[in-house]
Amino acid sequence: MVIQEQQIARASLGEIQRPIAVELEEIVAELRRIIVGDFPIIAAANEHLLRMKGKLFRPTLLLLSQRAAQVAEPRATTLAAVVELIHLATLVHDDSVDHSVLRRGMPTINALFSHQVAVIMGDYLYSRAIIELVNLGDLEPLRVFGRVTNEMTVGEMRQLEAHDRLAYSEEQYDQLIRAKTASLVSGACEVGALRAAPDHRAALARFGLHLGMAFQITDDLLDYTQTEAVTGKPSGLDLKEHKVTLPLIAALGRMTPAKRQLVVRLMETPEPSDEIVAAVIRAVEAAGGLEYARRRAQGRAQQAEAELDLLPPSPARDALRDSIAYAVDRRS
Amino acid sequence: MVIQEQQIARASLGEIQRPIAVELEEIVAELRRIIVGDFPIIAAANEHLLRMKGKLFRPTLLLLSQRAAQVAEPRATTLAAVVELIHLATLVHDDSVDHSVLRRGMPTINALFSHQVAVIMGDYLYSRAIIELVNLGDLEPLRVFGRVTNEMTVGEMRQLEAHDRLAYSEEQYDQLIRAKTASLVSGACEVGALRAAPDHRAALARFGLHLGMAFQITDDLLDYTQTEAVTGKPSGLDLKEHKVTLPLIAALGRMTPAKRQLVVRLMETPEPSDEIVAAVIRAVEAAGGLEYARRRAQGRAQQAEAELDLLPPSPARDALRDSIAYAVDRRS
Repeated sequence: MVIQEQQIARASLGEIQRPIAVELEEIVAELRRIIVGDFPIIAAANEHLLRMKGKLFRPTLLLLSQRAAQVAEPRATTLAAVVELIHLATLVHDDSVDHSVLRRGMPTINALFSHQVAVIMGDYLYSRAIIELVNLGDLEPLRVFGRVTNEMTVGEMRQLEAHDRLAYSEEQYDQLIRAKTASLVSGACEVGALRAAPDHRAALARFGLHLGMAFQITDDLLDYTQTEAVTGKPSGLDLKEHKVTLPLIAALGRMTPAKRQLVVRLMETPEPSDEIVAAVIRAVEAAGGLEYARRRAQGRAQQAEAELDLLPPSPARDALRDSIAYAVDRRS
Repeated sequence: MVIQEQQIARASLGEIQRPIAVELEEIVAELRRIIVGDFPIIAAANEHLLRMKGKLFRPTLLLLSQRAAQVAEPRATTLAAVVELIHLATLVHDDSVDHSVLRRGMPTINALFSHQVAVIMGDYLYSRAIIELVNLGDLEPLRVFGRVTNEMTVGEMRQLEAHDRLAYSEEQYDQLIRAKTASLVSGACEVGALRAAPDHRAALARFGLHLGMAFQITDDLLDYTQTEAVTGKPSGLDLKEHKVTLPLIAALGRMTPAKRQLVVRLMETPEPSDEIVAAVIRAVEAAGGLEYARRRAQGRAQQAEAELDLLPPSPARDALRDSIAYAVDRRS
């Protein structure tokens, strides 16, 4: 079931975003309007977060889904800003929970201000998202985002259990990344198509789910393969933090007892050295863990692609297809 | 403007809750239904929180407001459970931000589990509240609670600035407690009266605001006057944590330079001893800080009472009047 390279042409994010470039340009201004606050710490944290702006992957998917569903949606820009805002709020809390110091190559809120500010700031951003959705005067986006946000918290709880657990299964990993990542990606696609025919809305929700799974598996792979200069995060960070992800889960079943013992030693070391992290990365690769995870990501990519066949052909559908290739082939 | 003791008869919370005793009994079951989760840490944290159940002051106000507004509100029990849930979610985050170890005489979530679990658990509870409100199919409670929750986060940010700041003004303190406490108390009263005539709804919102201010000033006073055995929290904790509240703000302007120097020394000590805390408490009392704060609480109590005159007479309105006396005269 390995997807053929030629089936999905590699596209840059810029190319994918071309059909919705005008709306995307409005997202940051819209985000700024929604989160504005005059209390000094809040204003300073807002400015920092707006500078730290990412690739707007979720707003991109929301806007492309709306186009692909071929329905009018005058609220699209606001909804796209809100999905990025919800993502931002979860990043602020996640970084605080993980004690992360870098995000997108910039200091995290907990590193720049404090742990306390990060907890409160996440709540501030999330409640601003709710207020904005209420102002749209429609319960449907609130229904989707409320459910998704709750799923993400369950994913975060699962993540806490994914430390130091060499018995962690692929099934548990799937549940974790579905809740932590795929739920919001799916929600973005679904909310873009709220006014579409029910079968189109459902297809886009499933598309987002598979895409989100592929995206997170790729993210976890990049932690094994990429350098800090490329990703903006130290490489091998997951292993340093004793986080068990798919490459390791897959490799553990095929390792020699000696290599497995190396992993046990890393997990028992409170602050593993770069050397032991590098040795475990080599062992995971040698046991086929990276290759296995790549295949899983490709499998999810195929499932995402199949959902798009249920939509009418359009440039936006083509761009969604390209976003699958972007999710699994990206380098950062 | 000191209110006369005889104007407001002292009532126990049990007496205040009598008109709505039946609904209140359903609140915990309703809360349990709303927050249920099968992931082990979440289930364990839920059980702990349900055991830690407080006095249900906010649900009480919501239910009494609904009665006093004399409108049918079939969703009252659910709305009352949600207001308690939102309160619970903020307590979980506040305790985490403040590194508190005790709440209502029981260990906090951050103490019993971890800081990480507390951050995620607060998000879990809050998003469950949103889901429940969406399921009621009405944007109005979401509008009020969304705004209130955002105000509470701004209040929490203000609280961070209220440490070590001897120049903290009474105006800043008022803004802080309005956002941190009075906003949700006001929201509870307003949501109980969503279906009432606009002037009754507005009167109850203002009633809740004044009541919430009186409640928080009294809370801050109790930190100066009560022992751990009564409140479930160590006494003098605010001073130990360098939190500046109204008794200190009022006293600072009237203290001798020597006493003021004592306060400066406490604020400069990372972990102040019980002795210096006790000495500052005596100095605050001697300078009239406690008496000043009591007068302020009584002033707010009078303002709250005046709002009730705008409602038709009823046993529920009498109970709301008693709740003012409870808020300012309670011992814990």
